[in-house]
Amino acid sequence: MGGDFGPQVVVPAAVEAAREGIAIALVGDEAVVNAELAGCDAEGLDIRVVHASQVVEMDDKPADALRRKKDSSIQVACRLVKDGEAHGVVSAGNSGATVACGMFVLGRIKGVQRPALAGILPTEKNPVVLIDVGANVDSKPQHLFQFGLMADVFARDVLGLDKPSVGILSIGEEEGKGNAAVREAFDLLKKSQLRFIGNVEGRDIFTGEVDIVVCDGFVGNVALKLSEGLATSLGRILKDELKSSWLSKLGTLLSMRAFKRFRKVTDYAEYGGAPLLGLKDIVLVAHGKSNQLAMVNCIRMAATSVRNRAHEHLVEKLADHQGLNGKSEKSAA
Amino acid sequence: MGGDFGPQVVVPAAVEAAREGIAIALVGDEAVVNAELAGCDAEGLDIRVVHASQVVEMDDKPADALRRKKDSSIQVACRLVKDGEAHGVVSAGNSGATVACGMFVLGRIKGVQRPALAGILPTEKNPVVLIDVGANVDSKPQHLFQFGLMADVFARDVLGLDKPSVGILSIGEEEGKGNAAVREAFDLLKKSQLRFIGNVEGRDIFTGEVDIVVCDGFVGNVALKLSEGLATSLGRILKDELKSSWLSKLGTLLSMRAFKRFRKVTDYAEYGGAPLLGLKDIVLVAHGKSNQLAMVNCIRMAATSVRNRAHEHLVEKLADHQGLNGKSEKSAA
Repeated sequence: MGGDFGPQVVVPAAVEAAREGIAIALVGDEAVVNAELAGCDAEGLDIRVVHASQVVEMDDKPADALRRKKDSSIQVACRLVKDGEAHGVVSAGNSGATVACGMFVLGRIKGVQRPALAGILPTEKNPVVLIDVGANVDSKPQHLFQFGLMADVFARDVLGLDKPSVGILSIGEEEGKGNAAVREAFDLLKKSQLRFIGNVEGRDIFTGEVDIVVCDGFVGNVALKLSEGLATSLGRILKDELKSSWLSKLGTLLSMRAFKRFRKVTDYAEYGGAPLLGLKDIVLVAHGKSNQLAMVNCIRMAATSVRNRAHEHLVEKLADHQGLNGKSEKSAA
Repeated sequence: MGGDFGPQVVVPAAVEAAREGIAIALVGDEAVVNAELAGCDAEGLDIRVVHASQVVEMDDKPADALRRKKDSSIQVACRLVKDGEAHGVVSAGNSGATVACGMFVLGRIKGVQRPALAGILPTEKNPVVLIDVGANVDSKPQHLFQFGLMADVFARDVLGLDKPSVGILSIGEEEGKGNAAVREAFDLLKKSQLRFIGNVEGRDIFTGEVDIVVCDGFVGNVALKLSEGLATSLGRILKDELKSSWLSKLGTLLSMRAFKRFRKVTDYAEYGGAPLLGLKDIVLVAHGKSNQLAMVNCIRMAATSVRNRAHEHLVEKLADHQGLNGKSEKSAA
């Protein structure tokens, strides 16, 4: 029911995913969903509709959504997973409420201190995983360290990377640069089995040279929204200027392919959603502005995560690093 | 002596500024500076050369630069100001060393807890002042509050804004969003005489709708470098694509004016340097990559700051907010 476009985009996206063999449960107002479904060619596909009488609005507070809207589509969807009737949840609705429902209904994997949102951003080369992009603020070194572990498993199992490189976001390349939490997390990451490459800076995020960038959710959220805003602003300036004379209009026509590629890099739709990592099950937070392509990609990503057993691998990864997990818990407390 | 291009760019820029009536002291290796000066038409201009036998290299640590290179160009320049022989310092050299020398040689204005670097970024409309962009990490609420006061004075006296709007960088628009320091600083800013507009998000920085954005130096430094990196990446993608066929090459020729404007917005040169606010005198940290235009703009900005008595006004602004300064110092301790 959520997102800027609601069932109009979500339902056709789900139908497209079902055609690829993914079993779908559409959770929301039965009448609305069925009406939308009637307009799609969904005959014979593995799609069922599960009714939910409430909807979390975009301005509802997460805590209120959790307590007062027990029959909201997001909460019903999470319970479906909890009860073993589905394997993962994808939502383009209120992201705070999605995170809260995921955490409280599904719960954390044992040993995970703070689940985190992983933003998957397009770059000049491969996408980069920025973790956390807003589930936590004032993260402790231990939390940052675990973000690295969680993103490593995700990058292997879902993005198909063999040995993803992990950097920690800081304000200088050399060890010892950064704030107190980053400096301590650096030490933990250095001792881990991850392919840790040390500090990376803001300018390194979009070069595509690093696969995973670890940061506190405050910093990651600012970075995510800043890059989105800047790309939009630059695109707008270019568009305005190119329209300003018939000469440049003609020029634009001739350069169309180039602009398409520019837009593709600045377009988040391609990578779909931000997985909330560290929960017992898959929750994917789709961008509110998600179009059909973005939603399909989200559903695919959730399915890949389930098929490739990312959750089991995270449990193993945590066990492999138990020494570091334990040791630093004290120093971070 | 500093910056990617050294005296080759700094000396001609200083000559250009001198032609506008700004008195210049060029501090550095006398022989090198004089040789460069001989190539410029500097006859009759108010320019003197002050010898400094040492140079801080880009990879020198600030503390080392301070202790071991007492006769470096940056330290000699700061002492010149301290001794009343100049009114401000501009440097494109090692920015950490410039900040350290500024702080230790010139000292803070009484009442200022943490001097901060103000980045001046181009946007779709007016430039935005982002403060702090890297002089401090782990800032207390009180520090963030004072960044707002310092940037307000700067925006009035140097950028010529009448009543600059001030936002605090957070991860949601509503009051109460953000990390602990931001939430407390919000309360202080709300009670101040500043034109405080509340939380702003990463996406709001480049719209040009807010004049001043307050943040911790870790976050600001990431934001600054991220936007620089992203603008460069997007420019490069566009350029590569536009070169990829003769059709789009022709298109580019026809759209030249549009690309110039695009570059202008993504080009930091126009605004020159980042002033280090809160010191007893003017210190301007120029971008290492500064070209001649950027350096001239830096020198102009330093001169405007001196002429418009920004320092005296900051002392008054601090006095006006003594209640808030005092009150919160306890709560932040």
